[in-house]
Amino acid sequence: MSNKLGPLDGILVVDFTRVLGPPYATQLLGDLGAEVLKIEMPEIGDDLRHFAPVINGDSYTFLIHNRNKKSITLNLKKEEGRQVLYKLLEKADVFVENVKPETAEELHIDYRRLSKLNPRLICCSISGFGQEGPLKNYPALDLIAQAMSGMISVSGEDGRVIPTEIAVADFAAGIYGTLGVIAALYSRDRTGLGQHVDVSLLRSSLTILGQLAGVYLGTGRSPRPGDKKKIIIPYGIFETKDKPIVVESAGVVNWKKLVDAIGIEWLRDEKFATPAARAKNREELIPGLQAELKKKASAEWLEIFAKMGVPSAPILDLKEVFEHPHMIETGMVATMEHPKHGKLRMVGPAIKFSGTPITFRLPAPDLGQHTEEVLSRFGYNKEEVGKLRSQGII
Amino acid sequence: MSNKLGPLDGILVVDFTRVLGPPYATQLLGDLGAEVLKIEMPEIGDDLRHFAPVINGDSYTFLIHNRNKKSITLNLKKEEGRQVLYKLLEKADVFVENVKPETAEELHIDYRRLSKLNPRLICCSISGFGQEGPLKNYPALDLIAQAMSGMISVSGEDGRVIPTEIAVADFAAGIYGTLGVIAALYSRDRTGLGQHVDVSLLRSSLTILGQLAGVYLGTGRSPRPGDKKKIIIPYGIFETKDKPIVVESAGVVNWKKLVDAIGIEWLRDEKFATPAARAKNREELIPGLQAELKKKASAEWLEIFAKMGVPSAPILDLKEVFEHPHMIETGMVATMEHPKHGKLRMVGPAIKFSGTPITFRLPAPDLGQHTEEVLSRFGYNKEEVGKLRSQGII
Repeated sequence: MSNKLGPLDGILVVDFTRVLGPPYATQLLGDLGAEVLKIEMPEIGDDLRHFAPVINGDSYTFLIHNRNKKSITLNLKKEEGRQVLYKLLEKADVFVENVKPETAEELHIDYRRLSKLNPRLICCSISGFGQEGPLKNYPALDLIAQAMSGMISVSGEDGRVIPTEIAVADFAAGIYGTLGVIAALYSRDRTGLGQHVDVSLLRSSLTILGQLAGVYLGTGRSPRPGDKKKIIIPYGIFETKDKPIVVESAGVVNWKKLVDAIGIEWLRDEKFATPAARAKNREELIPGLQAELKKKASAEWLEIFAKMGVPSAPILDLKEVFEHPHMIETGMVATMEHPKHGKLRMVGPAIKFSGTPITFRLPAPDLGQHTEEVLSRFGYNKEEVGKLRSQGII
Repeated sequence: MSNKLGPLDGILVVDFTRVLGPPYATQLLGDLGAEVLKIEMPEIGDDLRHFAPVINGDSYTFLIHNRNKKSITLNLKKEEGRQVLYKLLEKADVFVENVKPETAEELHIDYRRLSKLNPRLICCSISGFGQEGPLKNYPALDLIAQAMSGMISVSGEDGRVIPTEIAVADFAAGIYGTLGVIAALYSRDRTGLGQHVDVSLLRSSLTILGQLAGVYLGTGRSPRPGDKKKIIIPYGIFETKDKPIVVESAGVVNWKKLVDAIGIEWLRDEKFATPAARAKNREELIPGLQAELKKKASAEWLEIFAKMGVPSAPILDLKEVFEHPHMIETGMVATMEHPKHGKLRMVGPAIKFSGTPITFRLPAPDLGQHTEEVLSRFGYNKEEVGKLRSQGII
């Protein structure tokens, strides 16, 4: 994409993460220019390699979350495997793992041990519940963190909970992990020291509750599914003559734009003039507004709303999203050449840097594809590599 | 919380963001040690100041998303206001804004102008649709980005769409913005140059679609609400004798743990042994599993599951979350002293740094609370400040 260097060019990351959000975190470090060595269990590999959909023997979900990485097989349950890991970590800048704290201890990859090996090393642990507290070793996945952070309790409609299908907790923790690593790198340039960066799915979820946390912390009342529509008016899905659209036009200026766009006199009534007034007279306002929106087709409304600056949108499915001219023109559908799959389509980067762009350099690796290349770079000769292989270490 | 310096100690951020995700981004920069000067329109201020719930005249949602900031009123629609801003930016390291690209041009705060003023300045734009492409000036808020990224189209149940009430697009963009700024700071230490960091709610949403993007990009089929439960089995909410719990135990190892924990022979059948087999025989498996879970109370199941390592959890409401011993013991419920509100409860940090901890130093500011203090530091004398005030510039 560019021959400029990424912000993390020259940084070596050893990545012992599995599944979704944490491997996404290390992919982001790779996107930013770091070299990422992905450690996987011999023969088994990252669980994500088996996630649907599987295309030509590879998980497409794995392929789009593990670019810019090299794969090394290494059995960390054996002492000889750990010795290889330690050799990598002596030279590495960053180590990222997502095992439970007790598993990190069992595998001898806890921060206390690793910091002695290399005091400049930044260790990032992405776990369900963090490195401390009574739940620290409780088994966690995205849905578990969503349930225990209250995220599920506030989502759904009319008081009935329905969780989102987006792995919000997992990805939030992943992005926070990347952020934490870069902040620690920045800090290391001044202090000369690495540190431990502790990120949890639970804490990550809590920080993005937003206004719903505001409601509980400010009033002591737990919000319920559908409450957001009661305090932000109008907010949500509305029917039109043909298909539903979303409208979020609750601010002072946006409400005026909406009223002008719809052009119906009764909406100008004093009883709907302020957010508080709309909340109070919601039972009258919403059905009336819904009835007006039913009178025109979605395309008509969206054109009027766009012209008047009313925040509104169609509900696109993923095919419509990825074929949208805006996505194509702005590079949101990126392609990479893969030796087995040919042109792989993937989601482009979230951040665009004018000076040090993100680059997609390596397609997702096969299991253990780079074991020998990397081990030889770290001083292992052919005989030693052969021995490690025959012992099931790599 | 600590007298160690944060990773961004010494960094000066000028913050022209409003509402939720972007002010959260600059709060994060403040949490990490930066000094953050929040620019607000005189008399009006950030819209978030009016968001529910309002307690003693202040929005609690504002209070928990604007700590570690100083507030300066400044009318950027007037040339004299811009001149003050430019004076701040000559000394600043970072500028963050979340207006539309055309508004940035109108206000003369676009990157091209600002980079001439201070080539070391890092400018971060957090917008709905990014700095380029046909939708760049389309009005956007969280729900709009969720609709246009496909996020809403995949959430809900049994094919019916129901958006999450979490402002996922807004917060994802906010956290990416912080990440981008720190990466640019790290890079600046090597290149000597600032750059433009362009983050959009739309792109941020697309990158966290996860497996659902995998399904579309790998097969060309757009996933529908409820599909995730069909490919990850078991995944979701299950009824018990008293109240619902969540279970996500679909991996090879976790499935075995679940079968052992429930202890029912028919679950060991070959037809449920692999993820693919469970997907195929889902119509038989799920109702059977649901019937078994109905036989015991939630607390019983959760105790059994925790002991066996099955990922499962109660669906906590926010009161249960914030009163949970784990949250209290690990500092997830932080308190800050506020001159007007006394002890303010807020959500603790998502990231814990062992060496350079996050600190909560300043409570959210009143509108314009620090205007005179900051202006005097930047060389404005009393007379000049008085003149700016009488002209409605500050």
